[in-house]
Amino acid sequence: MGKKEISKPKHNEKILKDEKGITAEKDEFSEWFTQIMLKADLADYTDVSGCIVFRPTAYAIWEKIKEETDKRFKKLGIKNAYFPLFIPERTLAKEQEHVKGFAPEVAWVTEAGNSKLSERLAIRPTSEAIMYSSYSKWIRSWRDLPLKLNLWNNVVRWEFKHPIPFLRTREFLWNEGHTVYASKEEAEKEKDEIIKVYGEVCEDFLALPSLIGKKSDKEKFAGAEYTVSMEFYLPNGKCVQGPDFHHDGENFAKAYGIKFLDKSGKERHAQQNTFAISTRMLGVMFAVHSDAKGLILPPKVAPNKIVIVPILFEDSREKVLKKAREISKKLEDFGIILDEREEYKPGWKFNDWEMKGIPLRIEIGPRDLESESILVYRRDNEKKETVKIKDLKIKVQEILEEIQKGLYKKAHELLKNAIVETETLDELKKAVGGKKIGFVPLCKSRECEDELKFKSGGAKVLNIPEEQPLKLGKSACTMCRKKAEYFAYVGKSY
Amino acid sequence: MGKKEISKPKHNEKILKDEKGITAEKDEFSEWFTQIMLKADLADYTDVSGCIVFRPTAYAIWEKIKEETDKRFKKLGIKNAYFPLFIPERTLAKEQEHVKGFAPEVAWVTEAGNSKLSERLAIRPTSEAIMYSSYSKWIRSWRDLPLKLNLWNNVVRWEFKHPIPFLRTREFLWNEGHTVYASKEEAEKEKDEIIKVYGEVCEDFLALPSLIGKKSDKEKFAGAEYTVSMEFYLPNGKCVQGPDFHHDGENFAKAYGIKFLDKSGKERHAQQNTFAISTRMLGVMFAVHSDAKGLILPPKVAPNKIVIVPILFEDSREKVLKKAREISKKLEDFGIILDEREEYKPGWKFNDWEMKGIPLRIEIGPRDLESESILVYRRDNEKKETVKIKDLKIKVQEILEEIQKGLYKKAHELLKNAIVETETLDELKKAVGGKKIGFVPLCKSRECEDELKFKSGGAKVLNIPEEQPLKLGKSACTMCRKKAEYFAYVGKSY
Repeated sequence: MGKKEISKPKHNEKILKDEKGITAEKDEFSEWFTQIMLKADLADYTDVSGCIVFRPTAYAIWEKIKEETDKRFKKLGIKNAYFPLFIPERTLAKEQEHVKGFAPEVAWVTEAGNSKLSERLAIRPTSEAIMYSSYSKWIRSWRDLPLKLNLWNNVVRWEFKHPIPFLRTREFLWNEGHTVYASKEEAEKEKDEIIKVYGEVCEDFLALPSLIGKKSDKEKFAGAEYTVSMEFYLPNGKCVQGPDFHHDGENFAKAYGIKFLDKSGKERHAQQNTFAISTRMLGVMFAVHSDAKGLILPPKVAPNKIVIVPILFEDSREKVLKKAREISKKLEDFGIILDEREEYKPGWKFNDWEMKGIPLRIEIGPRDLESESILVYRRDNEKKETVKIKDLKIKVQEILEEIQKGLYKKAHELLKNAIVETETLDELKKAVGGKKIGFVPLCKSRECEDELKFKSGGAKVLNIPEEQPLKLGKSACTMCRKKAEYFAYVGKSY
Repeated sequence: MGKKEISKPKHNEKILKDEKGITAEKDEFSEWFTQIMLKADLADYTDVSGCIVFRPTAYAIWEKIKEETDKRFKKLGIKNAYFPLFIPERTLAKEQEHVKGFAPEVAWVTEAGNSKLSERLAIRPTSEAIMYSSYSKWIRSWRDLPLKLNLWNNVVRWEFKHPIPFLRTREFLWNEGHTVYASKEEAEKEKDEIIKVYGEVCEDFLALPSLIGKKSDKEKFAGAEYTVSMEFYLPNGKCVQGPDFHHDGENFAKAYGIKFLDKSGKERHAQQNTFAISTRMLGVMFAVHSDAKGLILPPKVAPNKIVIVPILFEDSREKVLKKAREISKKLEDFGIILDEREEYKPGWKFNDWEMKGIPLRIEIGPRDLESESILVYRRDNEKKETVKIKDLKIKVQEILEEIQKGLYKKAHELLKNAIVETETLDELKKAVGGKKIGFVPLCKSRECEDELKFKSGGAKVLNIPEEQPLKLGKSACTMCRKKAEYFAYVGKSY
């Protein structure tokens, strides 16, 4: 079943859509994940290999991520702008490390209408090159700094690896923040501000904990001095890099000529940062919380938090519907669906909305009218509870908050239990083989890091947390047995 | 001065930026418009010919347009989604009129990394082709209808005409709504809903009146049954097509196989509409309202509505600044700038903020502290008024509303006075030569329309209003003198 190509799944999607429920277990991850994407109407394949449709539920969650991130950026004085989709080949090539990092995945426009272009245009894989050409014109003096711009746009990286909806697609949506400061100190201070913003969005809204730390030199962003990343752990044992922050020092400023006169009249190169969160986080969130019945969504990001399924019988039909509509009206601020469809039985509807991840289901039948109470079902833990109709609004709010917290707690347990401290390569191999993340002592050498990846069967350094264990001083590098310089998280990663 | 190429202006932008004020008159339109774009920090040229930077002020206004439009779309039950940037050549080619209309302006991706692609990928000039492939999979029965999706994205049309910031750029931002209905009647009802949304956004926020009507068959959207457009009039006598609505009937449904089983179990083709508003409207708004001193913005869309310029003297400096900060705090909800820059004199600051289009300026000096009143200056009509500090908040609100209304009224006069009823080709030529819009009787023939464009020196049919003049019955076609079928607006257009 369709594991190789996003655009040409081997299974018949229409049959898949008509079957109810997920036919794969969560540990057949790829199959399970693909089924949820299709059956919960989150994504669909397209005629373009590696590119997906973001269907309304998925896109609405992305809009929520944008809104929460953007609000916080604005408080930091970051302003939105828009730069062109295209980057001329010569402009892209100005920073050597940068172009080397991206060139293998660039999609090139070479023709327009019936004409051949005189120079190839890259579809932006990221916008440093095109933005910093402008920055070099705009920035003249210390008065022009700091300059803090952000873009919300689409980028293209033509990966040749197996694509997975949201987690690895050739086109994705993201923010790219690009800030310029007069001093390194000021620039580096921004790191904590940005990681805090992304941390709040991921933890408080997506209910996702992460491992935060510096990337190794091998894994950092092409052109950066260093990269700080948030790494997420999926139930299949693989990790995914989420939001990141790059401090570029003067690297790009030197390549693109971003210079300013400081207060003493001396010309200096500017200090720069970039940072991003992408639609990949949708994939992480769908993968971490969902189960064999389908999608599970944290209430804070679910476009609809409640569904009402009325239980209808001939003789009480109108009365029950009337009450259901009343309740629907009362709870409409939560985002509510009243499923009045005639052609489906309640049981079918229950499954349908569980598949689609609506956090709360309210069932209402004729007997509930008499008792003035109704059944509330939680999608996350499948527990049912009877609630007095008069208490409904407060109770629903409480339960939704419990679900939000519960999902975070469960994801946090999953991550915590996945981390294994190791000292030797054998221990690391065992951990990685058991779908865990190793917490691994290493020296800083590139050779050891390359060898580690090769010998561990493809696990790589995820990042290096700022807070290091006390025993670091007594630890030896897992590969060369020389003195360890840090403990790093090591695992398989998309 | 730089009229030919956006990316390679012949003038020296840096010199332009350092001169104060606009050195062109409003009737040297192109030069004047370009200077405002650059000097008010709205746009900048880039390394890519025909593509511009949308700087923060311009982008913030686009975000406002999005927000107001999106809110209204959501009330109509339209949901946002995202579809790929790329359209395979074969997919694009399915609807014949459509591909004929767009092919001459398509940018093609032919390479990725080091590989040549097996099929060219179009950068979307619009998304019918890629969306309707998905629609044909999703829509099976009347239960799946209506389907109302909308995208906010970037599109590329590689025009070879002279580019102008915002008004004609090779990449632009827009919404594209794509709705599907079971019946033609339902589909056509949407026309008024959508034109109302766009009308409110343009009139109430951008302060821009327009001519609303149907496009002629010659000028309609490639693939549509008919197009309804809103046409805007610029002070240089040229018109610009703004938001539009297309009813596609079954054209695309037939080409892409969008069929459904109706309630009687019969298979039928669906009825479709599309509609859009683009960043072109920013250009229209900047052009219509601004003057020789620079940008003028309607308060409702201005990111900052007020600037405070304190008049500072040695001995009263601190007192004045304290008061200025108090007032700034009090009015912060309007979006306010307190210009505390030391290195510029008040006069310089006045010019600077007038150039940048801040609707209201507040001047505060030592004498104002004694009188407890301050000077408020309106950017739109350059009038000054003394306002008691205690009344400031209410008064500011009133003045901003007056400015908003005033700008609309002025633009409305401009448009109204531009329209000239004509009966003969000579009259039309005189109108067009005098930078007016002709209101012109025509038959429906394509030949007459082609000839009209040729003989009038390039004026074209803008649109045909629904409400027609009584004298239509007695009027003859301007070109062939046969019976006129309608009066159309005719003018030069971008």
